[in-house]
Amino acid sequence: MLKAAIVGATGIVGQQFVLALQHHPWFTIEGLAASQRSAGQSYGQALRDPSSGALRWYAQSAPDPAVLDLPVELAEDLDAGRFDVIFTGMESAPAKVLEPLYAKQCPVLSTASAFRYEDDVPVLIPAVNDDHIALLEAQRQKRGWQGFITPQPNCTTLGAAITLAPIATHFGIDTVVMTSMQAVSGSGRNGGVLSLDIVDNVIPYISGEEEKVQREIGKVLGQRTANGIVPADLRMSATCTRVPVIDGHTESMLVITKHQTDVAEVRTALEHFGESFVQLGLPSSPQQFIVVHDDPFRPQPRLDRDTDDGMATVVGRLRADTAFENGLQYVLVSHNTKMGAAKGSVLTAELLAQKGYIGA
Amino acid sequence: MLKAAIVGATGIVGQQFVLALQHHPWFTIEGLAASQRSAGQSYGQALRDPSSGALRWYAQSAPDPAVLDLPVELAEDLDAGRFDVIFTGMESAPAKVLEPLYAKQCPVLSTASAFRYEDDVPVLIPAVNDDHIALLEAQRQKRGWQGFITPQPNCTTLGAAITLAPIATHFGIDTVVMTSMQAVSGSGRNGGVLSLDIVDNVIPYISGEEEKVQREIGKVLGQRTANGIVPADLRMSATCTRVPVIDGHTESMLVITKHQTDVAEVRTALEHFGESFVQLGLPSSPQQFIVVHDDPFRPQPRLDRDTDDGMATVVGRLRADTAFENGLQYVLVSHNTKMGAAKGSVLTAELLAQKGYIGA
Amino acid sequence: MLKAAIVGATGIVGQQFVLALQHHPWFTIEGLAASQRSAGQSYGQALRDPSSGALRWYAQSAPDPAVLDLPVELAEDLDAGRFDVIFTGMESAPAKVLEPLYAKQCPVLSTASAFRYEDDVPVLIPAVNDDHIALLEAQRQKRGWQGFITPQPNCTTLGAAITLAPIATHFGIDTVVMTSMQAVSGSGRNGGVLSLDIVDNVIPYISGEEEKVQREIGKVLGQRTANGIVPADLRMSATCTRVPVIDGHTESMLVITKHQTDVAEVRTALEHFGESFVQLGLPSSPQQFIVVHDDPFRPQPRLDRDTDDGMATVVGRLRADTAFENGLQYVLVSHNTKMGAAKGSVLTAELLAQKGYIGA
Amino acid sequence: MLKAAIVGATGIVGQQFVLALQHHPWFTIEGLAASQRSAGQSYGQALRDPSSGALRWYAQSAPDPAVLDLPVELAEDLDAGRFDVIFTGMESAPAKVLEPLYAKQCPVLSTASAFRYEDDVPVLIPAVNDDHIALLEAQRQKRGWQGFITPQPNCTTLGAAITLAPIATHFGIDTVVMTSMQAVSGSGRNGGVLSLDIVDNVIPYISGEEEKVQREIGKVLGQRTANGIVPADLRMSATCTRVPVIDGHTESMLVITKHQTDVAEVRTALEHFGESFVQLGLPSSPQQFIVVHDDPFRPQPRLDRDTDDGMATVVGRLRADTAFENGLQYVLVSHNTKMGAAKGSVLTAELLAQKGYIGA
Repeated sequence: MLKAAIVGATGIVGQQFVLALQHHPWFTIEGLAASQRSAGQSYGQALRDPSSGALRWYAQSAPDPAVLDLPVELAEDLDAGRFDVIFTGMESAPAKVLEPLYAKQCPVLSTASAFRYEDDVPVLIPAVNDDHIALLEAQRQKRGWQGFITPQPNCTTLGAAITLAPIATHFGIDTVVMTSMQAVSGSGRNGGVLSLDIVDNVIPYISGEEEKVQREIGKVLGQRTANGIVPADLRMSATCTRVPVIDGHTESMLVITKHQTDVAEVRTALEHFGESFVQLGLPSSPQQFIVVHDDPFRPQPRLDRDTDDGMATVVGRLRADTAFENGLQYVLVSHNTKMGAAKGSVLTAELLAQKGYIGA
Repeated sequence: MLKAAIVGATGIVGQQFVLALQHHPWFTIEGLAASQRSAGQSYGQALRDPSSGALRWYAQSAPDPAVLDLPVELAEDLDAGRFDVIFTGMESAPAKVLEPLYAKQCPVLSTASAFRYEDDVPVLIPAVNDDHIALLEAQRQKRGWQGFITPQPNCTTLGAAITLAPIATHFGIDTVVMTSMQAVSGSGRNGGVLSLDIVDNVIPYISGEEEKVQREIGKVLGQRTANGIVPADLRMSATCTRVPVIDGHTESMLVITKHQTDVAEVRTALEHFGESFVQLGLPSSPQQFIVVHDDPFRPQPRLDRDTDDGMATVVGRLRADTAFENGLQYVLVSHNTKMGAAKGSVLTAELLAQKGYIGA
Repeated sequence: MLKAAIVGATGIVGQQFVLALQHHPWFTIEGLAASQRSAGQSYGQALRDPSSGALRWYAQSAPDPAVLDLPVELAEDLDAGRFDVIFTGMESAPAKVLEPLYAKQCPVLSTASAFRYEDDVPVLIPAVNDDHIALLEAQRQKRGWQGFITPQPNCTTLGAAITLAPIATHFGIDTVVMTSMQAVSGSGRNGGVLSLDIVDNVIPYISGEEEKVQREIGKVLGQRTANGIVPADLRMSATCTRVPVIDGHTESMLVITKHQTDVAEVRTALEHFGESFVQLGLPSSPQQFIVVHDDPFRPQPRLDRDTDDGMATVVGRLRADTAFENGLQYVLVSHNTKMGAAKGSVLTAELLAQKGYIGA
Repeated sequence: MLKAAIVGATGIVGQQFVLALQHHPWFTIEGLAASQRSAGQSYGQALRDPSSGALRWYAQSAPDPAVLDLPVELAEDLDAGRFDVIFTGMESAPAKVLEPLYAKQCPVLSTASAFRYEDDVPVLIPAVNDDHIALLEAQRQKRGWQGFITPQPNCTTLGAAITLAPIATHFGIDTVVMTSMQAVSGSGRNGGVLSLDIVDNVIPYISGEEEKVQREIGKVLGQRTANGIVPADLRMSATCTRVPVIDGHTESMLVITKHQTDVAEVRTALEHFGESFVQLGLPSSPQQFIVVHDDPFRPQPRLDRDTDDGMATVVGRLRADTAFENGLQYVLVSHNTKMGAAKGSVLTAELLAQKGYIGA
């Protein structure tokens, strides 16, 4: 078994890492770390609200009692050398400081944006850009680390990138126009969306989100070179909004391809995407990366977010666009806190373990 | 005072006509008509649920007690000759049959789609295409009617068209890409969206809506000829979705203009749009047709739908597009059951009355 | 395997019966029946909307493809003699007519209220009143049927009754005051709550619900005699409201017991309730009938409704009442469309099968 | 004109005070105060988010531009002697420190709970306990203040107390059982309910709320003596829950009266309550304190919270209780951020001004 630590363990992403790892066949949770406020307590104590006794647990499934007994260490003092892999679910500012410290000794898989845009840091999405993994060698050498840092993309990037990948491969992508309708769980718990703001409402802006998505799509779909990634040559326009949905980002997509195609061909490309990855048989892998619905009322976040335990991207309304030649339209739903966050990161770790980058 | 009738008076649109007309300075409600189920009762009786005694009233403001005492006539038997104007809020199928009967004698303003796509029928939006009014003469002559039919556009068309009109005038429009996030009240009460379908959800499709919007935008922004409208020469792509919002459609817009411009110029054009219309001083007119926000978190349907009592279109996030040269992006909120339905239709009637098409 | 039919198969309750039975170890779905509109088609065809092609499926889990191929028969023509048990999910009016026809030949488990208040008809809740089963003999004799009818209680009755049963047994119940906050899925699909009515709202009334709950609680907790049930001697007051929640009824309970007790004793009684039933090992049985939380912020419908796959009743805020001597307060959450409807009915069928009332 | 200050001006309650006072016929806003973070800026600057430029304004109506230009002073340094009245909308801890400082020189009307339970501090509700005002004299003498402190009750207490007052007067109250379904705006903005917690959910607990309501009901309906209030002799039991509603608390009430009565008598008592208060003609007074609906589907928070601009309490479902002799049941809706907070406090100030306690 590979020894895993979770940093930022008490937060919403950290809790999802606990769920993704607590009964994992390859990884065991050997360490939990958090800020000064929680350090020195058991995980169960740290999660419990002192005044009301309530367990501050935000996910649908419950944590394993054994995990609640684990001690929470101070993130700054964590001895990275004890672990085979460290999963981090922190804000960007502490991630900037702590992740390099850990990476000196240990592979770090992060959900923070702190290192996403560095040249030698691949932003990995399973089945999309597995060849970017080789860049980790360059990173290690350049930085003199035994480990490395590889971050998850933004949760809104993820569903878009998974559906764009087969289209880029088969037909080329000239332009992407996206309007997202994002779930409230994506906004985290500290500084999250207040109910006062979202009931009976849409919020038409999420700070920094559109820039992140545009930049990350280019990088994720880009070409690896010896020392970095050449971004994909595509134009993108994004509007990111928040809607009263708990989990599951919905994205309205318009894609202009470089080569002529038709809906049937695109559908085939989507449905076959990731087949060889699925055959790797990794524990957290979906059985099918992209599920395509004929029913025009699908995908809906409430009905489709949990497809394949939240690891599949669900597509519907695939049709020829009415405005652009070589234009395609579709709507997708992607689970922002499963494939789009902790569990997606665990799937990446499984791939890295199989390829010998973790635990070797 | 001009004598007005409301047909489909017990439905959700009919009730909004009651609210828009009950204290109107120019119009009095002289007739109410509905189907067999309600005919022969007082309006108050017809609205009351026989088993529970509940008043089936769907709007926030209450009806005037005097209106509740008015008799409800059978729509099929309504003597159109008694009225100066008839407002109809019916489904498309009965509208197809009844509106021409009324139009023989009386002007008909409709919210149904039944006649929207006929050559000699203008789809009027105040301040957008007032010159299309002249087509009513051709309609009268061709059909041998004393009255005429002029329908409201679809509620989703309306907010889009109002913001596109000044852009078309000043900069020309090549292409429009729209994703709407529509309120549930737009779906009406019979066959409306069930709460089971929309709580914690987005529905990515509304039957027929996208085709309507694309067709109507072309017509509304088109050029009037002697016998019809030549649609505007623009390309459009639309995705219409439903979100858990009571009132107020939100639309994410991407517009590619024919001529180069910048955000400041577009903003000026939007803010000045409709100024001469406002100076007509019509009773239901907004004070400003388009309100533009700098705050990137606006417009929000809950905060902005009631701007100028639901008659203004509220715009925010105006910015240069990142994918297309001459591309502009913005988000708008438009009140789908006020400017987008009955009260918008009453504003059109006020304009027609002032120009002598009603009550002359 | 026991041969089961589902009548009202295309409705929301019928679909839940399909889910509860499609991979059941004891029952196979041998027949599906519905009204004229669906009869003669395959189940999949009957569920598909002719204009849009959408599958009208309302539950989170998907139906088995094999079930979609089964033919739908006309409910009026169903040959009850072919089955070991018939599950019905119809409105009360057709249930009144059809259920007795089926019961001549076959056991009928119903979710309709049509026969709930007849003297010789037990309203069974697993673990609560299993001794009422013996009344089925009297029913068969009196009516001359080979089968019988036994209905589920109302979904709001169910959670209340399960928690009241151990309190009644151990401490006696003098009075119950309940305010429910019910989910929208309880209102069914035809005539269900419109989203226009429930977003940002509470509806303080559900027609007939309070009377049903008060009457059914008395019957369910009553004493069986040779020919009927003597209602429990308790007083009850109920206010039933609807809130914007998809699944899971929340009930605020105040119980005045006959005998003095304390919170610890009541908690023990609740937690041990149903233990011998659980040991029967029935396939749909919860592992624990009543789960009690210390966390004062629980139970919450979104977090707790799926406890033990929706078959457990979850209790929290158990405390001594501040107004009444021998008063207890608590809040419960019960899954209205699982234990409270189809799957609860299947659990009853399992018990009846084990006792030889079905399939003997 | 009376000179008013608002302390805690940038918070949600402070903003409501701005709305309630900005066009008031008797009061002018002469001072705004807040914490260190906002002090020294204009009100408009203090409200603006530095990174996004968004105006952090939480109420539906907009602030007057003139108010946005007022300077924000530091609450600790506010010279209370400049004002005729100070309205405070702070958390309890700073209120405990600052309100007595202000009260040395100036009347203080507070929405905080800091002084609610002190013997010499009346908790005033217009029309309910106007005779408690005389206690302010005792407070001034005892504490040696020129001014005084008088707090609003909790927003959940308010609607309950207004409906209980006429029942207590006419029929006596023995016991009250209440389950509240409270809006999210009642939870404030800092530490407010996150959307992640409330969409598709009910939260069955609000820390400290039930104790507050029970204690305050007794005090508000109590008897004034020379030096304090003797609490009303009634028993009360409360369960306070949070539901996905923006504004408007819904309360399910069961009242056991001391004397026999009937629904018609109670209805008359409710409808006539506050008539003499209304005749005072105070600017913020409702036209009718309690509006009673026959329609069993009312009151609903979305439809009824704004009755009389949020100053009326709306009652429905008035009926004889089925469990208790002399038991009555009803449901009420009360606007928690209008009558239940700032605007209710302004109405109290109007009464105090008319009686010479403010501005004399």
